[in-house]
Amino acid sequence: MRQSSFAEIHCSLARTLEVVGDWWSPLIVRDVFLGVDRFSDLVDDLGLSRNLLTRRLDHLVEHGILRREQYQARPRRDRYRLTDAGRELVPVLLALTAWGDRWQTPPGGPPMRFRHRDHPAEPVVACGTCGEAVTAGQVDVVPGPGGRRAPGTMVVAERLAARRRGEGERPTGSVGSIP
Amino acid sequence: MRQSSFAEIHCSLARTLEVVGDWWSPLIVRDVFLGVDRFSDLVDDLGLSRNLLTRRLDHLVEHGILRREQYQARPRRDRYRLTDAGRELVPVLLALTAWGDRWQTPPGGPPMRFRHRDHPAEPVVACGTCGEAVTAGQVDVVPGPGGRRAPGTMVVAERLAARRRGEGERPTGSVGSIP
Repeated sequence: MRQSSFAEIHCSLARTLEVVGDWWSPLIVRDVFLGVDRFSDLVDDLGLSRNLLTRRLDHLVEHGILRREQYQARPRRDRYRLTDAGRELVPVLLALTAWGDRWQTPPGGPPMRFRHRDHPAEPVVACGTCGEAVTAGQVDVVPGPGGRRAPGTMVVAERLAARRRGEGERPTGSVGSIP
Repeated sequence: MRQSSFAEIHCSLARTLEVVGDWWSPLIVRDVFLGVDRFSDLVDDLGLSRNLLTRRLDHLVEHGILRREQYQARPRRDRYRLTDAGRELVPVLLALTAWGDRWQTPPGGPPMRFRHRDHPAEPVVACGTCGEAVTAGQVDVVPGPGGRRAPGTMVVAERLAARRRGEGERPTGSVGSIP
């Protein structure tokens, strides 16, 4: 019910959450990325129940984030691999992790460090056009072709459209268009 | 129960999920970012119950993502603002949205488009050191000072430590160290 309502929201963030927005999926993708890719290792690492892990893995395979790859025939044993979509999700999870390092730092400091090529790296979100790091205040959001006034974007779609027409009140939040 | 277990995992991704890993929080942060920052507007936009929204807002305030700001005295009315931590989360949510635009595109195309300064922008995750866009295969993960062998990182912590010592099998997944 909740899931289907997220899938129907005309927002790519909501649709992303439909796929990987539960509590466990990002950690499963993290583990597979780090080479912890067998069912029993995932159970041991995350400490979740086998039933729940099965459901999450099925969901991630069904939605094209992971694929199964057989590594033993008898008895059949699979490991999990990231698909292209899953691999593209990894940098975003690294950026979420870096945010957590800054704002929710565990006791003792960051549990993991990242290296990019041969240097220490902190993942940042940048503009794909100019390469500059993106901050909330520099980004403007404009309506796209798939926007709809529907549950989940009932007010947002209207506000964005009004801003495009130059009508209505400017958003009073921390962001809107470029000052 | 589940929340407290996430908070205790020695992983900044898990700790991030503890704060904004439920289904609604990212959409609430999205809305406040877009200027939909009053309780009744959030109810109208997202179509969730007032009770659930109250709980999510309290949680986000308590964890330092949002703050309340009074805009009317009688009756008291608040709007929600992003804190510094909340504003830093926005670019990561934009990157999640861009991933959804690519891999979970809603019918009709992307519902929102982004502009950075004066040009169209696609948010990408880049290396904060060299500025290059980060792909999963170019990132190496090494143990940090806060890493622990504990539920949630039971296997991962060991693997990372073994790799640092140059022992053990290399991760067989899509990623490991730089080839």
